[in-house]
Amino acid sequence: MSADASKRPSATGSAAALPGTPDPALLEDLVTANQILSDQGVIDAYGHISARDPDSPQHYWISRSMAPALVTASDIIACDLDNNPVRAGETRLFFERVIHGEIYKARPDATAVLHNHSPSLIPFCNSDTRLRPMVGSAAFLGEGAPVFDIRSVDEEGDLNVCTMAQARGLVQALGRHSLVLLRGHGAVLVGDSIRQVVRRAIIAETNARQQIQAAILGPVHFLTPSEIEFARRSKPKDPERAWQLWKRRAMRG
Amino acid sequence: MSADASKRPSATGSAAALPGTPDPALLEDLVTANQILSDQGVIDAYGHISARDPDSPQHYWISRSMAPALVTASDIIACDLDNNPVRAGETRLFFERVIHGEIYKARPDATAVLHNHSPSLIPFCNSDTRLRPMVGSAAFLGEGAPVFDIRSVDEEGDLNVCTMAQARGLVQALGRHSLVLLRGHGAVLVGDSIRQVVRRAIIAETNARQQIQAAILGPVHFLTPSEIEFARRSKPKDPERAWQLWKRRAMRG
Amino acid sequence: MSADASKRPSATGSAAALPGTPDPALLEDLVTANQILSDQGVIDAYGHISARDPDSPQHYWISRSMAPALVTASDIIACDLDNNPVRAGETRLFFERVIHGEIYKARPDATAVLHNHSPSLIPFCNSDTRLRPMVGSAAFLGEGAPVFDIRSVDEEGDLNVCTMAQARGLVQALGRHSLVLLRGHGAVLVGDSIRQVVRRAIIAETNARQQIQAAILGPVHFLTPSEIEFARRSKPKDPERAWQLWKRRAMRG
Amino acid sequence: MSADASKRPSATGSAAALPGTPDPALLEDLVTANQILSDQGVIDAYGHISARDPDSPQHYWISRSMAPALVTASDIIACDLDNNPVRAGETRLFFERVIHGEIYKARPDATAVLHNHSPSLIPFCNSDTRLRPMVGSAAFLGEGAPVFDIRSVDEEGDLNVCTMAQARGLVQALGRHSLVLLRGHGAVLVGDSIRQVVRRAIIAETNARQQIQAAILGPVHFLTPSEIEFARRSKPKDPERAWQLWKRRAMRG
Repeated sequence: MSADASKRPSATGSAAALPGTPDPALLEDLVTANQILSDQGVIDAYGHISARDPDSPQHYWISRSMAPALVTASDIIACDLDNNPVRAGETRLFFERVIHGEIYKARPDATAVLHNHSPSLIPFCNSDTRLRPMVGSAAFLGEGAPVFDIRSVDEEGDLNVCTMAQARGLVQALGRHSLVLLRGHGAVLVGDSIRQVVRRAIIAETNARQQIQAAILGPVHFLTPSEIEFARRSKPKDPERAWQLWKRRAMRG
Repeated sequence: MSADASKRPSATGSAAALPGTPDPALLEDLVTANQILSDQGVIDAYGHISARDPDSPQHYWISRSMAPALVTASDIIACDLDNNPVRAGETRLFFERVIHGEIYKARPDATAVLHNHSPSLIPFCNSDTRLRPMVGSAAFLGEGAPVFDIRSVDEEGDLNVCTMAQARGLVQALGRHSLVLLRGHGAVLVGDSIRQVVRRAIIAETNARQQIQAAILGPVHFLTPSEIEFARRSKPKDPERAWQLWKRRAMRG
Repeated sequence: MSADASKRPSATGSAAALPGTPDPALLEDLVTANQILSDQGVIDAYGHISARDPDSPQHYWISRSMAPALVTASDIIACDLDNNPVRAGETRLFFERVIHGEIYKARPDATAVLHNHSPSLIPFCNSDTRLRPMVGSAAFLGEGAPVFDIRSVDEEGDLNVCTMAQARGLVQALGRHSLVLLRGHGAVLVGDSIRQVVRRAIIAETNARQQIQAAILGPVHFLTPSEIEFARRSKPKDPERAWQLWKRRAMRG
Repeated sequence: MSADASKRPSATGSAAALPGTPDPALLEDLVTANQILSDQGVIDAYGHISARDPDSPQHYWISRSMAPALVTASDIIACDLDNNPVRAGETRLFFERVIHGEIYKARPDATAVLHNHSPSLIPFCNSDTRLRPMVGSAAFLGEGAPVFDIRSVDEEGDLNVCTMAQARGLVQALGRHSLVLLRGHGAVLVGDSIRQVVRRAIIAETNARQQIQAAILGPVHFLTPSEIEFARRSKPKDPERAWQLWKRRAMRG
């Protein structure tokens, strides 16, 4: 976290009750999410996923700075929306966690946030071709995922999102979207639950691969605006089914 | 299944004897098919395969709504061609099972039906480039797989095949073909046995990948009409051999 | 084997001593070759590899008609160069084994023959772009692998090589090359040992993938004629090392 | 090693103390590096990685000539910078080890050297399209990896780097870069530690795949010069995390 971020007086979270022990179900989902994302190859040693505390919306839960594949329940800690750990003495912190706090501030609908470097998303980070939905389950990509270019904030050359200004630039590029690509870097996804964000991350990777394959065949027919609207209004069909299957595979892997 | 479909009085199946216990061999093949399709990566958490009852052709067998990878013999239930479960109280039903009933009505030659979202077929669902046979075993693709565009039925924006009208549109697009692609969605395959449909699903995925690779190299030479005709007239060479190998791998996986 | 082939009086092999038990080392290599080719994904349920008998060059050893992954020493049988099994009563025979006999007749240098449907070779079977060597170990591809079009023999529509005429057409297309692609079908490789043919099959698949990737980047610079010549004249560096590694993996897989 | 190289009187290393037993930590890293590189698929049966001796910079440690996947601590030997083994009687030596000695002579900053045939780098070896960084962690590729064409040294047709002249040509092409591609052959990477070279080898392979995918989508936006400079000046964030994860997977694999 940048010095700016840690020193900034909390505008939103200061009065909130500090969360004590997290909801066991949320904790379990967060651990499972780390394992599924790793097993499905959409997170590497450096990504991170967080969840907003349901009882204390000015706080979120995230693992200490470590490889997602190795996260267990005891590695999950709470931070406020200025990304300060609730418990004194926590020092193993993701330096890019400013992304999480800024998104939770700007997007009250966001209850989970993921930052990853999903392999097939990288080509779209560095292209004028937009990532667009090939199938209904990818409708959350809308008319095309926006790309955040960190040069719109500063030209220092660091591609990592470390400062408040950079995180706010990212949040602005994200807008009302569910996924924003980061030029030369990776992606950030938001959702209304841990499971939705995990699902979106896996679908985004698959969709990217299929869009690249389709581009080889010629012009690609993406979902129409009304199909995107319909899918966004609809609940996914039995998302639990895929979650349980991914979990099974992650446990076995 | 849509309300329309479930309430529609059965035009074809009402007088047929209800199937009791299924043929054990058919049941075993259906379970194995679910496992092979999952292991080979051509079905995900949401596809389904069914088989027509050999003694009661107005009924078909299909798993309850669940991940194919987890299907066991006790999960297989019977439906009539209006997609109503034979046994009262069955409620975990695939909402897209209307596809199966409508195909069995329209295609007396069809004894097995599969709906999947095979990864390398999706690019062809959204392209003007047709999926065509690269090798003899893919001759069932004929001069090119048709693509069903659900907008030809309605413009509501749902890409899933839920209503009778949508299923009939799909059946019309399928025609006498063995595989129909669904724009923005996936594929439906038919065959004269469970094993043939499984075989076709695996070959279709491989063929799609190879056709995409070939397109990179330049114009592609597909099978000639006489080669397609010859292969269609011929029995496949020892299909049991591949089935047993796939089964072995699925068991081990 | 076609009726023609089996009835044709043997012009070359009739006077040769029948091989008794095969050389144990050759037998072990042939079994291992089947397992390595399967494990490396360059042979599927339907390919076959054979080795000429070192003491009786008018005979070759090959497995019964079965999945290569399942071959054991007791499945290896001897055939003469007219593809008749030496031991009476052998009936589980590859119907395309005519390929082996005809190559051994035409190419005294060939001591091992493989027919496969290696996935990344198929795009080159159906393209005007020739498969050419990207690296020194692929120099056996020469100035480009020839493609055998079965229509040059007959127009019946069968893509399989079943008759003597078809096999001779294939042998003619092969010429002095080490690999011939079969339009709409697969490949045939020859070598001076089982291990060399296995090595070539694995390298050919890798080379094909890399050539396709390179084609995306723009014009490809292949090995020069003098580099091809040099590599052909040279012994490979420690081929045993790769063989042992592949064997280890196949055993573990 | 060529005769030239072995007979050449050592200009740099003759007065150095011979290394006795290697540093245990270095030894362990070198063994682990061999296993990680194999497990991650960026080294095959024929690559090699070495590390300069920290106490005796005129010597380096490397395994005997063998498959990297099988290397154990007892297989690691010391060579001087003329690539002569320190201990008499060592005969299982990589014939291309001249690469290591020449780089250590020319690049005092190099403490580890890797030669591999990473699959997705080969297309760039044979293309005019340069391998360029897609993300910050690949900034070591700079404005594009140079390609060494062995024909710039001699036209004998051997693509392997065997002679001093060839190795010097390679060193010249490498210049101050961290990675040099070898036309028709593979790559050589240098770094300031074993772990950095391993990290670079894995990132280079991933970057190559992503750049090829991006090329399908249209013009690719690579890192800017200031981003490359920034990343080069910066320490990587917690590289230990990825190393431990790769090690875990290699142990399990």
